[in-house]
Amino acid sequence: MNKITLLIHCDDQPNIIASVTNFMALNNGNIVYIDQHVDREQNIFFMRLECEFASNAFSIESFKELFQNALVDKFGFEWRMYSAEKKPKMALFVSKYDHCLYDILGRYNSGELNLEIPFILSNHDDLKSIADSFKIPFYHIPVTKETKKEAELKQLELLKSHNIDFIVLARYMQIVSNLLIDKYPNKIINIHHSFLPAFVGAKPYHSAYKRGVKIIGATSHYITEELDAGPIIEQDVAHVSHSYSIKDLIAKGRDLEKIVLSNAIKLHANRKVMVFDNKTVIFS
Amino acid sequence: MNKITLLIHCDDQPNIIASVTNFMALNNGNIVYIDQHVDREQNIFFMRLECEFASNAFSIESFKELFQNALVDKFGFEWRMYSAEKKPKMALFVSKYDHCLYDILGRYNSGELNLEIPFILSNHDDLKSIADSFKIPFYHIPVTKETKKEAELKQLELLKSHNIDFIVLARYMQIVSNLLIDKYPNKIINIHHSFLPAFVGAKPYHSAYKRGVKIIGATSHYITEELDAGPIIEQDVAHVSHSYSIKDLIAKGRDLEKIVLSNAIKLHANRKVMVFDNKTVIFS
Amino acid sequence: MNKITLLIHCDDQPNIIASVTNFMALNNGNIVYIDQHVDREQNIFFMRLECEFASNAFSIESFKELFQNALVDKFGFEWRMYSAEKKPKMALFVSKYDHCLYDILGRYNSGELNLEIPFILSNHDDLKSIADSFKIPFYHIPVTKETKKEAELKQLELLKSHNIDFIVLARYMQIVSNLLIDKYPNKIINIHHSFLPAFVGAKPYHSAYKRGVKIIGATSHYITEELDAGPIIEQDVAHVSHSYSIKDLIAKGRDLEKIVLSNAIKLHANRKVMVFDNKTVIFS
Amino acid sequence: MNKITLLIHCDDQPNIIASVTNFMALNNGNIVYIDQHVDREQNIFFMRLECEFASNAFSIESFKELFQNALVDKFGFEWRMYSAEKKPKMALFVSKYDHCLYDILGRYNSGELNLEIPFILSNHDDLKSIADSFKIPFYHIPVTKETKKEAELKQLELLKSHNIDFIVLARYMQIVSNLLIDKYPNKIINIHHSFLPAFVGAKPYHSAYKRGVKIIGATSHYITEELDAGPIIEQDVAHVSHSYSIKDLIAKGRDLEKIVLSNAIKLHANRKVMVFDNKTVIFS
Repeated sequence: MNKITLLIHCDDQPNIIASVTNFMALNNGNIVYIDQHVDREQNIFFMRLECEFASNAFSIESFKELFQNALVDKFGFEWRMYSAEKKPKMALFVSKYDHCLYDILGRYNSGELNLEIPFILSNHDDLKSIADSFKIPFYHIPVTKETKKEAELKQLELLKSHNIDFIVLARYMQIVSNLLIDKYPNKIINIHHSFLPAFVGAKPYHSAYKRGVKIIGATSHYITEELDAGPIIEQDVAHVSHSYSIKDLIAKGRDLEKIVLSNAIKLHANRKVMVFDNKTVIFS
Repeated sequence: MNKITLLIHCDDQPNIIASVTNFMALNNGNIVYIDQHVDREQNIFFMRLECEFASNAFSIESFKELFQNALVDKFGFEWRMYSAEKKPKMALFVSKYDHCLYDILGRYNSGELNLEIPFILSNHDDLKSIADSFKIPFYHIPVTKETKKEAELKQLELLKSHNIDFIVLARYMQIVSNLLIDKYPNKIINIHHSFLPAFVGAKPYHSAYKRGVKIIGATSHYITEELDAGPIIEQDVAHVSHSYSIKDLIAKGRDLEKIVLSNAIKLHANRKVMVFDNKTVIFS
Repeated sequence: MNKITLLIHCDDQPNIIASVTNFMALNNGNIVYIDQHVDREQNIFFMRLECEFASNAFSIESFKELFQNALVDKFGFEWRMYSAEKKPKMALFVSKYDHCLYDILGRYNSGELNLEIPFILSNHDDLKSIADSFKIPFYHIPVTKETKKEAELKQLELLKSHNIDFIVLARYMQIVSNLLIDKYPNKIINIHHSFLPAFVGAKPYHSAYKRGVKIIGATSHYITEELDAGPIIEQDVAHVSHSYSIKDLIAKGRDLEKIVLSNAIKLHANRKVMVFDNKTVIFS
Repeated sequence: MNKITLLIHCDDQPNIIASVTNFMALNNGNIVYIDQHVDREQNIFFMRLECEFASNAFSIESFKELFQNALVDKFGFEWRMYSAEKKPKMALFVSKYDHCLYDILGRYNSGELNLEIPFILSNHDDLKSIADSFKIPFYHIPVTKETKKEAELKQLELLKSHNIDFIVLARYMQIVSNLLIDKYPNKIINIHHSFLPAFVGAKPYHSAYKRGVKIIGATSHYITEELDAGPIIEQDVAHVSHSYSIKDLIAKGRDLEKIVLSNAIKLHANRKVMVFDNKTVIFS
């Protein structure tokens, strides 16, 4: 059985759904999931579809070509098609905090994540023993102001040689430059420890303490050139009170960070996220 | 512009989506919403679809006939089709509590609810002045053990004469008999003041207090013969602590009850709920 | 039975709790509630205490004097003492939105709020009929750019003549000037329709839509000179998705606004809020 | 600096707070935390107090004796007093699931937990490598129907020889008998994967699926003789939909289980939990 996932967006116009579902039927496909969204402000149509095929008669490449010729020009689709069997490859960037790392690797081990982790990379070697205990290769690439560009070139080499599909910054604590962003547009997932757009930048828990907020949050988003301003994938919050010290906020926040980041990873790995106009459409 | 909403369920089988979307396209319809769900345990397919038609060329009745002949027998659909212009008519049953009533009428007034409220009915006359201030007819039908059947027959008459589509028990505090349930299957919405299936029956806040739970809840569900065991439409909870007296739990619970019930009403009125095997499928 | 509520803050120092509880014991008081908080950054001690006295032997005024002489200078207390029997008087300022108004008046009617509402005031007369149906005096004081100062002077007169203790802006939609703020410091409660400090100012739901956030919120805070920057009393949020239009966000937000504002009112009316350094301490 | 934590409950009566705070003052103690609760149904007074002493002049034992003689008989206190320096010792019982284990050990490693873990015990050896990687002794004591009593006697020996203060069943999956419960009353913490009292017993996610609930939950409670009926420490829930398979419910539930259990552990280890009449009082 072949199974494909198709993501489409284009200007909204009549007959898109009927045409696509018809195309699948004509190719003996059985649609097992379909969902769509129309952005009425911008008049953009989004669709996600999963389709099963009884035989292995065609390759994903030839089916892509078929689809391209039949419909893409006609409707002006921007589109991606994935074979469900092929798991995306994810690179994990970490620094010294281990809570997100443990959470991700625990899920990875239990089979909850539909992806592969070819390696973990860090600017420090503090977390190497965790990578070792999960038997995942660990690369230590220190970053200083002077060596930043050089370090990123090394990172790019590693990413390329392992055919990495997307990158997760699991509290990596370094600003990633355009060198990487341009190669991985909407494919670098960060976890920011506040409910964005509140408390952009460094030390959000300190700012939250100072402002006296009654909720704290965490936000997972794609990295763009502007700091903490990329498309938001997932957010969650927790209630806090005046009795929370900054240390308490940080501890409480760790629980948010790890679960919000892991949820964002699952959404991305399952190809449920589309990005348009610096916002995300998240399919269920 | 005509707009229809179509709800279908049937045994899961290939080509349903393509066939239905094709049918709409052939009739010059433009699908503006489609979502589906497959219950893999029971192998049942569910679909909700909204479709717009450029002209007023056909009536909803003739289009229903067209659909019936083209597809229903072939796939064995159970189905409902609604004209989007026709708002459902909702009867409100209340007793002495006013928080749900105020919440519903406030939303109704502000245009948030896509429905009509031909009348409010109560076994007491305490809330008549509220109905008056919102200019909605109020019927007072007292219920005693002896007069229960007679009262329900009067209710049925009122429901029939106003062409009521569904009934909402906004803390009505009376057990509704099969006389009504059989006429309005999966069309009588109740609000129960606990997170079902915990604390079935009377005085759930007292039971919650005694058990020492740290969360309380509210559940909106369709009434069935078995008490508090019907299909769940919506649930929500709030955190509480040892410091809450029963009176505090009741006050906190009121906030849950009114919002959970109003959400369930909106889902039902917007034809987003399907029922199968005593469970609901809720479309977004 | 007399019952008093005492709120204290001062520099943190030894023996405060023992001295105050001892004072109450010596005056034949029985403490039925005590809670304290220490702000370790600023080294400030906060305490809230409720104490019952068997007889009506003393007036609240004479007991205040007793307390002043015994302890206030010694520890340098900033303090307030209330007789529990005396309900605070709250003025309600509204404009055209009715959801917060209905929510507050529904609770007021049911006895949930420990306060009196001498009047409702508005710059429009749209909501007069609601005030009428709840039998609460309604004053219509229009506000234009030119008449703003004059209108506020009229408001002050009304507030004074009714001995108002605190003001609630239930979606009043007007910026309140220092004329009122200075007379009612930390006594004017506003509801802002975002999770502050995100989306300060006008049209926060529009900004939330544009940013593509996955949660929206509401914040109740005391009005200060700086817009939407006063001490936060209560916040809550709800999850939303890409499928929410601005209109949907506004509707969902109404549920947050009314419950967050009503909770803040209850906290203030029950004398559970202390303000220090633009932040609140909220006692349970 | 000595610091003690004192937990008291007794019949409610006048002057308890003043007497205790006075006692601390007379012994040159400075109260840094005080909170109390009165169960008005049962007329029981509860208090938690933290007090600092400038010198190391007395041992905790002699201070306990002092307190016993001064106040305990007079008021009829049930009480516990702890030296803040002494961390409680916690035994971790696990089986094959690793998500709670990783979560607890991650927090333990980061210094978030104020306790010691002398050993991890399991009826299977699957998780030994995790214990090894965190450098915590691991004991494998298999349990079969026939060997259950023998196994529990071995467990008791281990618990005694390590001076264990409380036990955490981190998805241990075995019913613990009275042999252990009697030795550790209100000191064995379990995590049940439902919002109790709904779905008591085995396979709660399967029951939740069958009932079609819209929220799932997790409950941490002390083990008592009756299954899943002990005093509740902490609960939390998450929203789910019809689209969740049983497998999805289980995965979502894991996130609740680990955070609810870790929160309960923190509350217990910080001596913030009191038990009375099969319910808990949780101090902040």
